[in-house]
Amino acid sequence: MKESNLKIIPLGGLGEVGRNMMLYEYEDTAIIVDCGSMFPENDMLGIDYIIPDFQYLRSRKDKIRGIIFTHGHEDHIGAIHHFISEFNVPVYGTPLTLGLIKVKLTRRGMINNVSLNTIKAGESIKIGPFKIDFFHVCHSIPDSVGLGIETPEGLIVQSGDYKFDHTPVDNWPTDYAKLVEFSRRGVLALIADSTNATRPGWTPSERIIGEAFEQVFTQAKGRIIVASFASLISRVQQVVNATVAHHRKIAIVGTSMVENVEMAQKLNYLNIPPGTMVSMNTALELPDSEVVIMCTGAQGEPTSILGRLARGTQRQFDVRKGDTVVLSSKIIPGNEEAVYSTINDLFRRGANVIYEEIAPVHVSGHGSQEDMKLLIHLTKPKYFIPGYGEMRMLKQASLLAQQTGIPEKHILIVENGAVINVRNGKIKLGGQVPTNTVFVDGSWVGDLGPDEMRDRAMLSQDGIVLVHINVNKRNGEMVGHPEIISRGFAASQEAEEILNRLEKPIIQATNTSNGNLERNVIRTVKSIIYKETRRNPTVLVTMSKI
Amino acid sequence: MKESNLKIIPLGGLGEVGRNMMLYEYEDTAIIVDCGSMFPENDMLGIDYIIPDFQYLRSRKDKIRGIIFTHGHEDHIGAIHHFISEFNVPVYGTPLTLGLIKVKLTRRGMINNVSLNTIKAGESIKIGPFKIDFFHVCHSIPDSVGLGIETPEGLIVQSGDYKFDHTPVDNWPTDYAKLVEFSRRGVLALIADSTNATRPGWTPSERIIGEAFEQVFTQAKGRIIVASFASLISRVQQVVNATVAHHRKIAIVGTSMVENVEMAQKLNYLNIPPGTMVSMNTALELPDSEVVIMCTGAQGEPTSILGRLARGTQRQFDVRKGDTVVLSSKIIPGNEEAVYSTINDLFRRGANVIYEEIAPVHVSGHGSQEDMKLLIHLTKPKYFIPGYGEMRMLKQASLLAQQTGIPEKHILIVENGAVINVRNGKIKLGGQVPTNTVFVDGSWVGDLGPDEMRDRAMLSQDGIVLVHINVNKRNGEMVGHPEIISRGFAASQEAEEILNRLEKPIIQATNTSNGNLERNVIRTVKSIIYKETRRNPTVLVTMSKI
Repeated sequence: MKESNLKIIPLGGLGEVGRNMMLYEYEDTAIIVDCGSMFPENDMLGIDYIIPDFQYLRSRKDKIRGIIFTHGHEDHIGAIHHFISEFNVPVYGTPLTLGLIKVKLTRRGMINNVSLNTIKAGESIKIGPFKIDFFHVCHSIPDSVGLGIETPEGLIVQSGDYKFDHTPVDNWPTDYAKLVEFSRRGVLALIADSTNATRPGWTPSERIIGEAFEQVFTQAKGRIIVASFASLISRVQQVVNATVAHHRKIAIVGTSMVENVEMAQKLNYLNIPPGTMVSMNTALELPDSEVVIMCTGAQGEPTSILGRLARGTQRQFDVRKGDTVVLSSKIIPGNEEAVYSTINDLFRRGANVIYEEIAPVHVSGHGSQEDMKLLIHLTKPKYFIPGYGEMRMLKQASLLAQQTGIPEKHILIVENGAVINVRNGKIKLGGQVPTNTVFVDGSWVGDLGPDEMRDRAMLSQDGIVLVHINVNKRNGEMVGHPEIISRGFAASQEAEEILNRLEKPIIQATNTSNGNLERNVIRTVKSIIYKETRRNPTVLVTMSKI
Repeated sequence: MKESNLKIIPLGGLGEVGRNMMLYEYEDTAIIVDCGSMFPENDMLGIDYIIPDFQYLRSRKDKIRGIIFTHGHEDHIGAIHHFISEFNVPVYGTPLTLGLIKVKLTRRGMINNVSLNTIKAGESIKIGPFKIDFFHVCHSIPDSVGLGIETPEGLIVQSGDYKFDHTPVDNWPTDYAKLVEFSRRGVLALIADSTNATRPGWTPSERIIGEAFEQVFTQAKGRIIVASFASLISRVQQVVNATVAHHRKIAIVGTSMVENVEMAQKLNYLNIPPGTMVSMNTALELPDSEVVIMCTGAQGEPTSILGRLARGTQRQFDVRKGDTVVLSSKIIPGNEEAVYSTINDLFRRGANVIYEEIAPVHVSGHGSQEDMKLLIHLTKPKYFIPGYGEMRMLKQASLLAQQTGIPEKHILIVENGAVINVRNGKIKLGGQVPTNTVFVDGSWVGDLGPDEMRDRAMLSQDGIVLVHINVNKRNGEMVGHPEIISRGFAASQEAEEILNRLEKPIIQATNTSNGNLERNVIRTVKSIIYKETRRNPTVLVTMSKI
């Protein structure tokens, strides 16, 4: 019985939605699938975004022979520049996916000496003991693929993000034949997108968005402003189609979206008839009824174009009565409040706002319950591993798989870091590798940990009170008055009164304290403030011996 | 032509969801409808809840002759103790609503010398020039009413929270006859609940929850834990019914829920057969298959019982494999993240979790689009004023009203503070009264303003850096080293290095600075930190002359 076995380790995206990353390891070869970023949660204060933990990879550095990307959305490619700066291994992906990656790396001056290898859907590559088939799937971005990974221990199918769209915008349906071929070869394990496991039925076709846009464009008298994600290339195509059909011109605003559109046009994934696209300045000179503006900010990000339009802080132009604003993307969980306040502000400015809740201007790119069952029946896996989702979604996916006849003991619900051991046609869980939340804040990556988050949370809850005291270097008694400063603690007047009442106790604590003086003063201040206000500001004390 | 006219002024709940409060003012009489609280938004850091702004009321103190409550939910009664402590006017409401208010005031030792006046649905009262009809409506709490307010300027109907439930749990349908009678008398204006204006169709009956519970109770082998709101009395009744039907015992945990249940039983709004309710300790000794536990925390509040169960910090008992946990309440916008992380943690502990997304264990208490149209046709108002909702909901409600034939010029979309002037059968907007967001934090009410929120936001984004320096009192030159402390700024090591690099520039700034020394040091520190880290921590400087 041989010693070596296949290890599959999710480094991100299992037990959460975002920062997807999967490691396949066999003997001295390791390959990686995707390396995405993730929106921070509301309690991750001051964080820009989150990326996977590379700790385990560092211990495997020499083994890593390549990284494969399934499609070009941020939750799959968003952390590539962090990865590449540490692990400069060959990158594999379809033309559009690599195009989006190129844009990303070029913007950061990292494009040189990165080996980008274009693999078309339907083609396959060999990396060490792994033979990988790229098969086309439908998603909300063109040129998405899933992977059939033939390993010495059997065939593993990883779906990537997918849905079964029978009328996709690019008329390129999922590669059913390949899925069936896999089932003939025998699929040991299927790792499948579970994002929509709680949604009954089928996910509708992207096509219905075209119909919704048709209606919006027919009714709109003034300008039409469409907000979406910078990488939603097929959405751009749909808006362009409606623009042409209604004899309007389109201006695209926002660096990332502009760069992606140019690239997608070059690669022929986006067809914009000559004369359709105009500059923002031209657009502003055209009659409102001839203008379409496409931009980013559908998540309500205050600094995005839509966010600035809603708050009236966009320099070039303002939203005004007669404008129709369309938010054409899902609300990422946790962003609800920001998105709805953006929508409310746009309404206040007189615009008519169309969003998913009131019209099908967005449809999910992830398969629902029936899509998931079909994928299982097409591939007939022995083992089922729910992928891409929070625990509640993985649990629901497991129930669906059981409904299709997969025995519960052949379903593995695993979260980030779990080691999936594959050997002799059997799969066993064993071991755990570190998968911490790696915070990116400004120019810092991983410099912040739970301690700083805790400090920030405390500061954000009750603010801070700072006490400075001068003590006589001979007798240790306090000299003069304590200096007390506060921030975010209470409105100035209220605070002043309380802080004034602190003076006597501080003097007392100072003069009577033996042992750590700072600590005693802090304890005194904290307890008085809590008694008087039931609040717990951070208290800092500085002291000078004079 | 007389000078006096009717003023209707929304002081809370219009342009937002929560803290509902409406003022009616005619000559020397003013009455108030509801006084609710509201969950803080995620960017209102450290705030417990929000209440309406009483500024305008203070200027009208002698005019206020009473406050009427439409039902007992927090967003309608949650701020009563703040109101009563300033304006001790007669309180009017139905028996259950007053019961919930009593519990609230008693807990705060405020029950004495408050005049509580029970008005049953179907009865009416006269307050100065106002004759007010209380009419029963169905909602997710029993004994809810809407109000027909006969004024010298005409009849105003305020719906309160409502839906048209034809099979309500308490078998008490909406008072259609009264609504039609209003239309015969002629309704000048209808102020209607718009919370669900974006939802097509009809809101389902509360009854379907009973069916969902029936299924849950049939399938559950172990303990059943149901989480909801403390004031959802009818939900408690439904859980009790299922408990009895399945020969289980129920334990109710959580002070507020226990108090509300006792009160509702006394008033016969809740029927719990003898021997059905047991103490928590008894419940823990019974076989799992005979236990139901009802508690609060369906919003994922970390300190609630469900929150502590999810995090494993509940003292009395733990959630374990075999338990079925039901979250039976809607997710209040902004709480999605907290609720879903609670659900995920409960799954991780082995429980089976049932929530609105996967089973109808909750149904909205607010009418959907068809309910709203029916209310309009029943009352036939001349003017329509969308109530209770964010701007996007008010806008949608306006569209629905237009579909029923109300001309756009007779629809008033107003937000908090707008003065609605009613005179000679005409309604005109004019004037604006202050309606600030009043924060309640610990024992403090309104002590915090936008400045403190800004400070807290800054602290939460990048933390704080504190610099203390000693300067020679004679030549003003720095003595020794600057003392530098930081919180929430960066991981200790990173921070140390940067802060060390600060020393020289600080000394320089100190010794070369003329004018405000603190300010110069702050400017120096901020600019260096920003250059090095692209971050903007709060910087405080203290100084001792020695």
